Amino acid sequence: MPHFLDENFLLRTPTAQRIYREYASELPIVDYHCHVSPREIYENRRFQSITELWLSGDHYKWRLMRENGVEERYITGDAPDFEKFYRFASLLPRAIGNPMYHWCHMELKTYFGYRGVLSADTAEEVYALCARVLGEGGLCARDIIEKSGVAFIGTTDDPVDPLVYHRLLAGEGTLKAVVAPTFRPDRALGIEKQGWRDYLVTLGDAADIAITDLDSLKQALSRRMAHFAAHGCRASDHGLDRACYREASQAELCGIMRRALAGEAVTREEEEAFKTELLLFCAAEYARLGFVMQLHYNCIRDPNSAMLRALGPDTGFDCIGPANGSRALASLLDRLYREGCLPRTVLYSLDPADNAFLDSLIGAFCGAGVRGSVQHGSAWWFNDHKEGIRAQLKSLASLGILGNFIGMLTDSRSFLSYTRHDYFRRILCDLIGEWVEGGEYPDDPMALEALVKDICFGNACRYFGLESEVLT
Amino acid sequence: MPHFLDENFLLRTPTAQRIYREYASELPIVDYHCHVSPREIYENRRFQSITELWLSGDHYKWRLMRENGVEERYITGDAPDFEKFYRFASLLPRAIGNPMYHWCHMELKTYFGYRGVLSADTAEEVYALCARVLGEGGLCARDIIEKSGVAFIGTTDDPVDPLVYHRLLAGEGTLKAVVAPTFRPDRALGIEKQGWRDYLVTLGDAADIAITDLDSLKQALSRRMAHFAAHGCRASDHGLDRACYREASQAELCGIMRRALAGEAVTREEEEAFKTELLLFCAAEYARLGFVMQLHYNCIRDPNSAMLRALGPDTGFDCIGPANGSRALASLLDRLYREGCLPRTVLYSLDPADNAFLDSLIGAFCGAGVRGSVQHGSAWWFNDHKEGIRAQLKSLASLGILGNFIGMLTDSRSFLSYTRHDYFRRILCDLIGEWVEGGEYPDDPMALEALVKDICFGNACRYFGLESEVLT
Amino acid sequence: MPHFLDENFLLRTPTAQRIYREYASELPIVDYHCHVSPREIYENRRFQSITELWLSGDHYKWRLMRENGVEERYITGDAPDFEKFYRFASLLPRAIGNPMYHWCHMELKTYFGYRGVLSADTAEEVYALCARVLGEGGLCARDIIEKSGVAFIGTTDDPVDPLVYHRLLAGEGTLKAVVAPTFRPDRALGIEKQGWRDYLVTLGDAADIAITDLDSLKQALSRRMAHFAAHGCRASDHGLDRACYREASQAELCGIMRRALAGEAVTREEEEAFKTELLLFCAAEYARLGFVMQLHYNCIRDPNSAMLRALGPDTGFDCIGPANGSRALASLLDRLYREGCLPRTVLYSLDPADNAFLDSLIGAFCGAGVRGSVQHGSAWWFNDHKEGIRAQLKSLASLGILGNFIGMLTDSRSFLSYTRHDYFRRILCDLIGEWVEGGEYPDDPMALEALVKDICFGNACRYFGLESEVLT
Repeated sequence: MPHFLDENFLLRTPTAQRIYREYASELPIVDYHCHVSPREIYENRRFQSITELWLSGDHYKWRLMRENGVEERYITGDAPDFEKFYRFASLLPRAIGNPMYHWCHMELKTYFGYRGVLSADTAEEVYALCARVLGEGGLCARDIIEKSGVAFIGTTDDPVDPLVYHRLLAGEGTLKAVVAPTFRPDRALGIEKQGWRDYLVTLGDAADIAITDLDSLKQALSRRMAHFAAHGCRASDHGLDRACYREASQAELCGIMRRALAGEAVTREEEEAFKTELLLFCAAEYARLGFVMQLHYNCIRDPNSAMLRALGPDTGFDCIGPANGSRALASLLDRLYREGCLPRTVLYSLDPADNAFLDSLIGAFCGAGVRGSVQHGSAWWFNDHKEGIRAQLKSLASLGILGNFIGMLTDSRSFLSYTRHDYFRRILCDLIGEWVEGGEYPDDPMALEALVKDICFGNACRYFGLESEVLT
Repeated sequence: MPHFLDENFLLRTPTAQRIYREYASELPIVDYHCHVSPREIYENRRFQSITELWLSGDHYKWRLMRENGVEERYITGDAPDFEKFYRFASLLPRAIGNPMYHWCHMELKTYFGYRGVLSADTAEEVYALCARVLGEGGLCARDIIEKSGVAFIGTTDDPVDPLVYHRLLAGEGTLKAVVAPTFRPDRALGIEKQGWRDYLVTLGDAADIAITDLDSLKQALSRRMAHFAAHGCRASDHGLDRACYREASQAELCGIMRRALAGEAVTREEEEAFKTELLLFCAAEYARLGFVMQLHYNCIRDPNSAMLRALGPDTGFDCIGPANGSRALASLLDRLYREGCLPRTVLYSLDPADNAFLDSLIGAFCGAGVRGSVQHGSAWWFNDHKEGIRAQLKSLASLGILGNFIGMLTDSRSFLSYTRHDYFRRILCDLIGEWVEGGEYPDDPMALEALVKDICFGNACRYFGLESEVLT
Repeated sequence: MPHFLDENFLLRTPTAQRIYREYASELPIVDYHCHVSPREIYENRRFQSITELWLSGDHYKWRLMRENGVEERYITGDAPDFEKFYRFASLLPRAIGNPMYHWCHMELKTYFGYRGVLSADTAEEVYALCARVLGEGGLCARDIIEKSGVAFIGTTDDPVDPLVYHRLLAGEGTLKAVVAPTFRPDRALGIEKQGWRDYLVTLGDAADIAITDLDSLKQALSRRMAHFAAHGCRASDHGLDRACYREASQAELCGIMRRALAGEAVTREEEEAFKTELLLFCAAEYARLGFVMQLHYNCIRDPNSAMLRALGPDTGFDCIGPANGSRALASLLDRLYREGCLPRTVLYSLDPADNAFLDSLIGAFCGAGVRGSVQHGSAWWFNDHKEGIRAQLKSLASLGILGNFIGMLTDSRSFLSYTRHDYFRRILCDLIGEWVEGGEYPDDPMALEALVKDICFGNACRYFGLESEVLT
């Protein structure tokens, strides 16, 4: 019986162990979608405690604490750091089967050399160990990035962002990893949201144009895309509650825009028409600029309005939002394909029941000359666990070409999350090992090496155009 | 190769076998949701034959018989008892992989000491054996309950039920198991159903109030809740075809109620507004009284109208009803949470594709001070099989805290169904054993004991407030 | 470690290997639903190259080539045969986990005796080997059918088809396999489609009746059904984008028909009403004639309109179309059951998330006297892979009676696809072996033999009424 989290963690067959060790374990990390702060990278943020690293911003952990009945004071409140950590450590043994259980121990082992098990009993010992390592100053933001072998970081940025830290990092040139911005114009598309009009003013300022109608809004977005492109951007990202596609005439769209700018509420249909129009516009621009388009959808944001009021968004209260957007999504891709302006596109649904649909959809819109130009993105957010990753890999393999998959991303706000790439690689190698040892795929070292290296590294490099920076 | 249904049934690893044997197998049963008759418990019902025990009311078995082409005369008709049993026994070998195959053999083994395999060949032998055991009078309702180690039975009861047998059982005090009613006001909420107006008259009589409007209906329900509370009730239950949430003004709601009381048909929208209002009202009352709220949804009731006319409801013709109620369910919880009156809540969808959604939703509404205050209920009805139970456990573990799960219930009309708790415990221990032996969780006896005992017994005790009755 | 594709391919336990070898491997094939051409069978089509066999019409393969970025010229264009084959062979090693990987190697092994691995490196060798075998003339259409042990072929035919080749084949009487037509009136039901009116003229001609209204359309369909019945037809098939059920008065229906015949566009609601009416009519006719009804639904046809214009339908651009038709489908079956004219029915959803729903639905409509009169069809199209087949089998077993399942079909346009029956049988035997070796089902040879032979062969024979032709 293997020991918990030993070197063969998640690798159940000799083949899995071999291909992981020989082909996967040492590859650099291309983390093409995450939420870490470029400023914190530039300033090489120093952390005071494991609480600061783990619990100051990670809403995955907050959520588990709430599920365990912990009071908010010990989660996002003003309780002392150790008190918070202790409550988190105490619940961890109950979270058997949760990726958090694995991630935490992988992070403690990788970055702090801790090989024990975190629980109420060991909380003090672990807290002290982490404090020692952090106090010695050997684990600032850049240390973690370098130690993790990160080659590329795609941050997530609002169009109004001046990208100062991206420029400074590039100018400085000391970090091995390339840090590039990702264009995420959710606030510009959020016509139904409070604050949209104020945002347009900010956006207009950033783009040096007064946004008074649809055209000027598009122009502002284009200018910001150009700014992003000039700062190394090669991808965009959209977060949609649900996939939508609603055609409307230019007159209707102008009317919607005018009424919304005047402060009138828009109907659900108007919102969809507006978003469709802007998505189509943005996508065509992305195609022109060579940006990858990422669409994240089927999410219920902020279902708990009381906690939204108390703590704001992105504090651990979102959930999966199954919605029947399959035909809308197909129509959106169809229109772009038909008009010759479908960019390379990565689709992520938060509902794992959409796996097979997505794997069949991407096959209908792939273009010539690029392997896997439309991708089913890695198991997203709530699905980013062993079962979810396996399910996404198996569905993608069963319906498409697994060897073209661009692989893992952390989607994380925490610098320690790079171990999730290792988690993914182990799950991938375990699955491939299972197939090989089951006689379902030949035990051909060259073919296996190509598959593993492409999925864990090479495909993402090529897909995001990183050959010159990263592959050399 | 293990023998069929031997002591290690479903327990594939030594760890699974050990934790099942040491921590799970002897635990008392808290059957917090079922449909057995309190009267039959009180009167200690005696059964004449295995046909009476198995086939007189169990629509799971009827369904399989129909799928095997058996004529209704041998299912719900007047064919002789052995003839019915013979037909059921004959189909059983074809039902490989069906939980019925396992349940039947577990029941024969546990309650009748039969260790063979039931089929057409052995039907006579088994029938005779059962007749002998039953004839000796050693297997009446209470014998089964005691033999099964049942500590708590939550029956399912209409608000108009006087709860006579609950009172008699409590007064008598000889049964070790606590038998408590569950408040299930489906008929009061069924404004779109035939018979609703007549039901309100009955409900008014039971509550000693004339129901003439929404207020008097709410008052009647409150009075009956008080009656239930006085009889040990600690849970409610709602069966909804689909989750709905539709806000309406008090004036609109009064209008809907008035028209429905006058015998006018209500629209789908009116039905949803009415049900939303009553659900919100009931939930707030449950929160005040400390009742758990159970919501069962995504079911198509009585899709076969011809057989509904012939045999009535609950005769084995219902089916899973996928429906997109995710946002409605989120809105319902949001409103209750916001108004500070969300009771402890257990959510059950009949559509297994909702697993991940539910596991993400509960995390958005858990409250402080209670572990897992909102729960994803055990794999329900059509999902109550090895694959379905595993899927629910794995999803819950992957997205939440498995250690807080309140575990299994029988949902059954049959006294022999207590073996389903054993079924569940084996599947749970097998899964945990798999994780431990795979190096995914430490082989820590204390942590494993806590997990297994909590999920199989302790969590439900605490969740339903049974500490004083059951845990002592 | 077993070798790739050795004799125990997919059979992971000794029991699986034994029951496959003893009960499954030698059974004849009943391929009750496929798309091969009766003309090609009659004319005993000869193939020039493996490209012609594999790539001239198989849109599964085209799809993978597009996903790999191959230019259309090498897919459906005029590139030389070897060039096309080379591009396909080159991508295959990347398609690990895809059934195509298995199918291709099974076909090469079974029909060409090739035991190596297809890739860019071996493309030339394989191409030459196939050319040699094909050139020797020993592998024409009928050779493949006979070599594969095919006992029955259910082709898919338009109502206007004169069924010449079916008649010629029957008259000739030399082919061991029975080749029967299947009645597929999609074009008659496609009121929303371009070309529907022209089609009705053709249909009228075939039926020798002028179609001027709903009644004459029904009459034309009935006449063609009679023609099909006279040619050995025993099944129908419908391809529906989504399940629908919308009742309408005869007056409304006549109006819809009149307007559509006049060339006016129909609304979505009118389309649904029309299709419901025709489905109900056809189903009642099928019941009268003893035809099985097959319903395929939840498919998005031709989502890529640009490629539809370029290449036409059925060229590899369709995808899964999740849609909430559960209640509609239930209503359709209810109406037919209530009116006593529900034929034996096989339901196929393209969305694998519908598995559990379908397995619960069929149990509500099974009729007396026939085992499994309503069936959940074999994993369809995009789901026709190891994981999808296992998922369908496990769901069906968990919710119904696996022993009554009518099993596999190829649904294929390629004569080489008969190996998919072997693929299915291995997956089935592996699953049963897993249950037996896990102690979940007795190791009873007679019961296992009955199960395997029924699911792989006997059930389909009885269900499609082939006892006299095939079983003797």
